[in-house]
Amino acid sequence: MSGNSFGTIFKVTTFGESHGVAMGAIIDGCPPNIEISEKDIQKELDKRKPGQSAYVTQRNESDAIEILSGVFEGKTTGTPIGLIVKNQDQRSKDYENIKDKFRPGHADFTYLKKYGIRDYRGGGRASARETVMRVAAGAIAKKTLGMFGIEVLGGVVQIGQICADSINLDDVYSNSFFFTDKGKISELEQFFKNLMEAQDSIGAKILIKVKGVGPGLGAPVFSKLDAELAKAVMSVNAVKAFEIGVGADVVTMRGSENNDEMSVEGFKTNNSGGILGGISNGEDIDIFASIKPTSSISKNSRTVDIKNEEVDIAIKGRHDPCVGLRATPILESMVAITILDLHLIDRAQCGDVKRD
Amino acid sequence: MSGNSFGTIFKVTTFGESHGVAMGAIIDGCPPNIEISEKDIQKELDKRKPGQSAYVTQRNESDAIEILSGVFEGKTTGTPIGLIVKNQDQRSKDYENIKDKFRPGHADFTYLKKYGIRDYRGGGRASARETVMRVAAGAIAKKTLGMFGIEVLGGVVQIGQICADSINLDDVYSNSFFFTDKGKISELEQFFKNLMEAQDSIGAKILIKVKGVGPGLGAPVFSKLDAELAKAVMSVNAVKAFEIGVGADVVTMRGSENNDEMSVEGFKTNNSGGILGGISNGEDIDIFASIKPTSSISKNSRTVDIKNEEVDIAIKGRHDPCVGLRATPILESMVAITILDLHLIDRAQCGDVKRD
Amino acid sequence: MSGNSFGTIFKVTTFGESHGVAMGAIIDGCPPNIEISEKDIQKELDKRKPGQSAYVTQRNESDAIEILSGVFEGKTTGTPIGLIVKNQDQRSKDYENIKDKFRPGHADFTYLKKYGIRDYRGGGRASARETVMRVAAGAIAKKTLGMFGIEVLGGVVQIGQICADSINLDDVYSNSFFFTDKGKISELEQFFKNLMEAQDSIGAKILIKVKGVGPGLGAPVFSKLDAELAKAVMSVNAVKAFEIGVGADVVTMRGSENNDEMSVEGFKTNNSGGILGGISNGEDIDIFASIKPTSSISKNSRTVDIKNEEVDIAIKGRHDPCVGLRATPILESMVAITILDLHLIDRAQCGDVKRD
Amino acid sequence: MSGNSFGTIFKVTTFGESHGVAMGAIIDGCPPNIEISEKDIQKELDKRKPGQSAYVTQRNESDAIEILSGVFEGKTTGTPIGLIVKNQDQRSKDYENIKDKFRPGHADFTYLKKYGIRDYRGGGRASARETVMRVAAGAIAKKTLGMFGIEVLGGVVQIGQICADSINLDDVYSNSFFFTDKGKISELEQFFKNLMEAQDSIGAKILIKVKGVGPGLGAPVFSKLDAELAKAVMSVNAVKAFEIGVGADVVTMRGSENNDEMSVEGFKTNNSGGILGGISNGEDIDIFASIKPTSSISKNSRTVDIKNEEVDIAIKGRHDPCVGLRATPILESMVAITILDLHLIDRAQCGDVKRD
Repeated sequence: MSGNSFGTIFKVTTFGESHGVAMGAIIDGCPPNIEISEKDIQKELDKRKPGQSAYVTQRNESDAIEILSGVFEGKTTGTPIGLIVKNQDQRSKDYENIKDKFRPGHADFTYLKKYGIRDYRGGGRASARETVMRVAAGAIAKKTLGMFGIEVLGGVVQIGQICADSINLDDVYSNSFFFTDKGKISELEQFFKNLMEAQDSIGAKILIKVKGVGPGLGAPVFSKLDAELAKAVMSVNAVKAFEIGVGADVVTMRGSENNDEMSVEGFKTNNSGGILGGISNGEDIDIFASIKPTSSISKNSRTVDIKNEEVDIAIKGRHDPCVGLRATPILESMVAITILDLHLIDRAQCGDVKRD
Repeated sequence: MSGNSFGTIFKVTTFGESHGVAMGAIIDGCPPNIEISEKDIQKELDKRKPGQSAYVTQRNESDAIEILSGVFEGKTTGTPIGLIVKNQDQRSKDYENIKDKFRPGHADFTYLKKYGIRDYRGGGRASARETVMRVAAGAIAKKTLGMFGIEVLGGVVQIGQICADSINLDDVYSNSFFFTDKGKISELEQFFKNLMEAQDSIGAKILIKVKGVGPGLGAPVFSKLDAELAKAVMSVNAVKAFEIGVGADVVTMRGSENNDEMSVEGFKTNNSGGILGGISNGEDIDIFASIKPTSSISKNSRTVDIKNEEVDIAIKGRHDPCVGLRATPILESMVAITILDLHLIDRAQCGDVKRD
Repeated sequence: MSGNSFGTIFKVTTFGESHGVAMGAIIDGCPPNIEISEKDIQKELDKRKPGQSAYVTQRNESDAIEILSGVFEGKTTGTPIGLIVKNQDQRSKDYENIKDKFRPGHADFTYLKKYGIRDYRGGGRASARETVMRVAAGAIAKKTLGMFGIEVLGGVVQIGQICADSINLDDVYSNSFFFTDKGKISELEQFFKNLMEAQDSIGAKILIKVKGVGPGLGAPVFSKLDAELAKAVMSVNAVKAFEIGVGADVVTMRGSENNDEMSVEGFKTNNSGGILGGISNGEDIDIFASIKPTSSISKNSRTVDIKNEEVDIAIKGRHDPCVGLRATPILESMVAITILDLHLIDRAQCGDVKRD
Repeated sequence: MSGNSFGTIFKVTTFGESHGVAMGAIIDGCPPNIEISEKDIQKELDKRKPGQSAYVTQRNESDAIEILSGVFEGKTTGTPIGLIVKNQDQRSKDYENIKDKFRPGHADFTYLKKYGIRDYRGGGRASARETVMRVAAGAIAKKTLGMFGIEVLGGVVQIGQICADSINLDDVYSNSFFFTDKGKISELEQFFKNLMEAQDSIGAKILIKVKGVGPGLGAPVFSKLDAELAKAVMSVNAVKAFEIGVGADVVTMRGSENNDEMSVEGFKTNNSGGILGGISNGEDIDIFASIKPTSSISKNSRTVDIKNEEVDIAIKGRHDPCVGLRATPILESMVAITILDLHLIDRAQCGDVKRD
């Protein structure tokens, strides 16, 4: 409602501002008896951690996770899991000089208009730092999904005009661009060199793939599987488009071309992205997210301040030239949380059917 | 949860199958003292009604709305509004010959796998006929939004390769294609003639625009305005992509190009589509939905039956060659319901701020 | 939220006013493949139907249920079940003379203050007629619970000073007072004769018992089983107290007396009413509801009208001298809906544990 | 759903076990610009803190609250408020000797049956220590309600057979029994002396009163104000009965006696406890909760262990002889949270009506 909870049975609630004391989350409704350790979560957090290559923000955070409750002798107890990551590198003074200006592309203006008050330090709650808790919750969701044979993978498939020609999701975390086609790495390195010299930023497209989902997840009408995934994905900062399967390409396709025919071996194609009528059909679920270029750029631009006077602005802080890069683990997490929640909801209503 | 409710304060719950007795809805949480008549709702329903041109299904339904409760002496009382539309033209026998086959692109397979049982007549609950109640609820939402100075408009901007060169949303309902550029009507007529001869179908892209929303709607993190709109839009049958503002085009844009600068007159551009950090910024909200070609085609294709034996299938019923056409009033409705709900939620938490 | 939905997985939403066109409900999330017929529902509705003895309102309603969706070839399909009962005996003119007066003990004043508008005919949405749909939904919940071996029974255990000395829940529907002790029937007949001559009404206490619930239903902290049951029971018109197990008697008890000791055969006593720490313990769940005397009495009393002028009022319509009598099937229904919903929720989170 | 969230607009989610690292909460949806400090919260926490008199548990906890987010420069920002209290006095070894036994009256058995795993240290999540976060959230709710002129007060009105003859809610926190009638203090002191010598415990009845609620809070049918309050109150550990207004006494009352007549000065009596038809009528809201005697007693009793073998048990830890005493601030908090949430919900749907 007020925006800081996600899910129904497996429910994630988060708090924390970029320059506050800590980021935290409560995971309620996790199935009991799942083995979870801080190490399991840390492994996922480290994927999105800042400061790991020349192409991401140099903010220095260890992002060390602490489990405060809900895990006993290494296993979930079914009661709420309290999680916390303390903020360390809070250079609030970086923001002093822009605290009265509305940064273009940022939430400064809208938060102030909505609430009549705003924590201007590093974007406060609107900061990408908020996503640390999505990844922590996602780590638990992924571990739990593993028990059901479900896996969530992702990677960057396009940055600016550079598209992946092939898609390999197995080692995206071994290159600085989280890119699915290693053949494009040197081209990307050159591109980022120029981009960073120009003090500018660039957009990206990410694929998230879910493997091992059997048919039956999702629900008719308003809670279609693709509708719930769309909400999950669009809730991540900077995402401007959500596509499932062939996505926006359907506009120019004919039915005879787009329909996935069936044979005794199953579906012959997967244009639908694994979803028919809002319910999974057993094929891979293929999701694409389009992410805008980082709003914070060092290049000069024009805006207004809180007195509505026009001013110049250049964001001098530590920023990612392409927020899309670190978005992969975040999007994987949101998709994992959604799929787990819908799996549990399906078990609630239709559990008996599945056991037949 | 089980998928047939939408919204939190202004909550819509629907029922009904394509070939059942009736379609119905309950609207709970509508503000009291709003003037609503059956005529207000009928006007909207008539926009999506089948049988109105050569380019839509020839199913013959009057779609006459009945208000069963919640309106007293012409005004909403604040109690739930019961709505019903009786089904008339239920040619169930059209479906006898395909009841054991899984129609490609349809939910036949997934419903059966999820529930272990399926109402095969006309797709049952998965039929586009389900959307009649979305439009009825949308009519009430639109009327209520009018009290707050908010308007929701829409139209088709692309069909196959034919794109609107200009966008005029004022009279989309006066042409058979709900198209926003009248200069393309004769081209579209020729295109559909060929398409229908080929017994095939085509995709479409639709723009929904919301005018008059002040800054402050939506919420941080998981319930961003664009996330809630994405869920609303993706919940409509056949939608495969959701975009806000410049949408998927952000992938190739630079920050300096994509950021909307501000001046004393307001935002200089609206690439963001009226949303920053998940909260409306007072600009028009621009949403694009990509809709797949109708799955039901008369052209022959291959599938399996419930015994998993391969068979030919050709859907001989009465079908739209482009489901995108009639999707405009449906998408307008979903967007209106979402915007109204978020308006009421914002009033709940921040009502005092706005009155300052 | 706005009050007309109940439940999370098995969710009931209702509409309808006392003197409107119809009462209706949507049941969403019912497990599929449950055999349900209109006859199953009608049997339960007939238990609360008016006009069946000298001791209940003489309003003449057949309360004929119609299933509009969600059931196909005699079984639930997992999609929403639409239900309707048309109103027949709507003597609105009975209410003309009191439409401007606030009836003591009624919701006339509060509805008008909340909504600024009020359907005064027969109490509108605040009428006990609203409960017809609770019983219809309860019939489906009971049938479904039967599949899990769970049974919900109830009966009146006290009317005024007349208490049941023994409790037999097997044939409460065979006496006009729904009383659990047949030995008190003639005493009750004499009591009601005097009460009705005095143009007055009386309170009652009802027991609802749930049999066959295994350990594990409910959840810690805010959604304790007893908390959810309390909401369900207190949501029924005229209920003023909710007790579980020995209830309010705990105030004067010592721990050594109140604690239920355990032996190898199980719990030695059931003071707790089958719930420990908010979770069922496998014993019978015993709930008591205290119901106020009917507010509508023919006897003269004082009130104010909408101009805040003092006036006499005597409610001449057709009213139950003891609303508690017909409350038994309504409370059984609310308890059944709650237990089923919590059963499905438990299956969602802990389904795997139970299968071990 | 899984039980650790409460409320819809003003939503409280908690975590933490008795002997875990910390107790914590997230308050989402708090109106912005409310002045809140750690001192405001600490003041309320200190009311329920253990170790403050001879009659409560001697566990030694400072219960020092830390605000981790959502408050900026002394005011709420509208974003989630993260709260934490670290556990200090965790004598887990006290529980070693009973870890395999099911304590009578406790949740040991039911948690193990539900989840298949149990944190046995001090009752884990089922411990009364969980309520620390209810009080912290309640402190914020109370402060916010103050802005709307609403006040929540409470006190103990009965312990065992000792009833308050008069009710004074202004200084209940100045006596060790939180009792509303100071004339009974010496009688209570004698009673507790005997009770503690007998190694036993006793029940209590508590009154919670809400002042300053205007007419219009609550909603018809399932979300009646009394239904929501019942859920809130029954969700507190050890509460076995909920009553509103005259409560269970309605069973023996006549309508002519129970109905609250109206005059030009307002309601002549308040038997209804301030609620008609589930909606507040502007009178004081009077709630009574009956609380069972503490389950943990040093006196010997019989139970079984996890191998289902019968054993003796005596709980030697540090326990309240009457959990009812410290329940007053907890119940005040739950009522405050509920009233604030319903106030915000009413503003959402009916905000315009109220401004007329």
